[in-house]
Amino acid sequence: MFNVLNMGLSVFIPDSVVSEDKTLRDKTLKLGYIARACSIFKVEKIYIYTDENGAFEKDFRLIKLILGYIETPQYLRRSLFPKTELLKEAGILPPLRTPPHKPYIPMASLKVGEVREGVILRKGGSLFVDIGLDSPIRYVGSGSDGERVTIVLQQVQPSQICKRALSDDIKEYWGYKVVRVGPIGKVLKGGFTGLKLITSRRGDPINGVFRELIEDMRKAINISLVFGSPKKGLYDILREENLTPKEVGDYVINFIPNQGTATVRSEEAIISSLSIISIMLKV
Amino acid sequence: MFNVLNMGLSVFIPDSVVSEDKTLRDKTLKLGYIARACSIFKVEKIYIYTDENGAFEKDFRLIKLILGYIETPQYLRRSLFPKTELLKEAGILPPLRTPPHKPYIPMASLKVGEVREGVILRKGGSLFVDIGLDSPIRYVGSGSDGERVTIVLQQVQPSQICKRALSDDIKEYWGYKVVRVGPIGKVLKGGFTGLKLITSRRGDPINGVFRELIEDMRKAINISLVFGSPKKGLYDILREENLTPKEVGDYVINFIPNQGTATVRSEEAIISSLSIISIMLKV
Repeated sequence: MFNVLNMGLSVFIPDSVVSEDKTLRDKTLKLGYIARACSIFKVEKIYIYTDENGAFEKDFRLIKLILGYIETPQYLRRSLFPKTELLKEAGILPPLRTPPHKPYIPMASLKVGEVREGVILRKGGSLFVDIGLDSPIRYVGSGSDGERVTIVLQQVQPSQICKRALSDDIKEYWGYKVVRVGPIGKVLKGGFTGLKLITSRRGDPINGVFRELIEDMRKAINISLVFGSPKKGLYDILREENLTPKEVGDYVINFIPNQGTATVRSEEAIISSLSIISIMLKV
Repeated sequence: MFNVLNMGLSVFIPDSVVSEDKTLRDKTLKLGYIARACSIFKVEKIYIYTDENGAFEKDFRLIKLILGYIETPQYLRRSLFPKTELLKEAGILPPLRTPPHKPYIPMASLKVGEVREGVILRKGGSLFVDIGLDSPIRYVGSGSDGERVTIVLQQVQPSQICKRALSDDIKEYWGYKVVRVGPIGKVLKGGFTGLKLITSRRGDPINGVFRELIEDMRKAINISLVFGSPKKGLYDILREENLTPKEVGDYVINFIPNQGTATVRSEEAIISSLSIISIMLKV
């Protein structure tokens, strides 16, 4: 709810999004760009849908892992992500520097109402949260050892006490969630709400539907942008479910009409479309 | 003249654009993304301006080399680019796949009026052009051995003859030119024509000036987008010339108002701004 749109913005990408990249390094790099684009434009949810009936299960695990890893504040990565070969190239990921990625401060500088990401620790019957500072702080509430939690400081004197943050406590963009879903047609038709924008080179040029789309965006609470795979556009992907983009989306849009290159890569399409969508409600 | 805008679109970047990247690989990668963004949106000229009085001379050579290399059709790269350490990571550059990057065809398929990129060769007193096909073709006109040239086929039977293409012969986007210029303030104030858009986080949000800018774009023949460096925005860069963005540009614009990340990288700012500019005249 913290983007220019003042509404929930979601992105759908297929689990085949890195299938054309040959090496772990290239896959990691592409996911880094996608994570950056989604964070710059305050995307709240990245949905990963199933392309070709689960053929990209291995890639899916990598996508979920890398998008989650880069979104996690650096100080929590070691406790939340066990060592794995899949993170071997994670060193090349750019920092996101979203609001939850807070810098180190002395404990004494913590203020009541401050929100931070942490991990719950059980110590002798009591719960604490490691928020990346000099020592874990006392946590009041439910939760289990090793669980990631967004906390809000309730008391700082004589000692720090925190509880789970409610959405009202969070006044800034707080990163995206990664959510796995099934085949895209089924998901979009199955009661998924909000304005659904299918991106496709074969869609209507964005300039042609610009004003009409703005009107519809004004009425919407959520907006979802749906992207195809590097190999197949959404016409082809949906055909496998005997569906067409027009049947599952409110708009089918070409966000880069008259492109100068034969193809546009997923990460380029995502950042370009988000750039345009993000300014539309306010023009 | 082949973008949606039907006008010349230029981009200015500083010679310090890759100065924050530590390795040749990272610098090459970033330049690849910039080249892709400019090609997708049919940028005609990439101007490289001098930041900090020539402190980035070495980076400048790399920028000029890599942007030129990636823009050159693959079949001409070996004859136009001598081996150099600076191209050691060029293998990671993505293909641009712009119209001049034509595929191999049999000589017999060449048609009169077809335009191709080539290199002039002198063979026993006559000039030929290597256009990446089975044999060089006869060239009528002036030029020197080893010169890159855009040719148009004049005759295909009984033998192929070509001449230098005029701009009227070229009906598609034909890639960008890389042009070196001096300090940005001096260049923009020194008779540089067209609509000058200075990008800056401290500029007016694009949504606020959207309609006004469209009106001005309608009257313009050329549009230039000016980007700062990874370390310094254009307020700081221009201050070294005792100038302000408002003094040298027609607009000072923040193309990513309300960004979710602390910083936006050059390649992200370039593709985002170009996405928006490219649809503006037609909305």
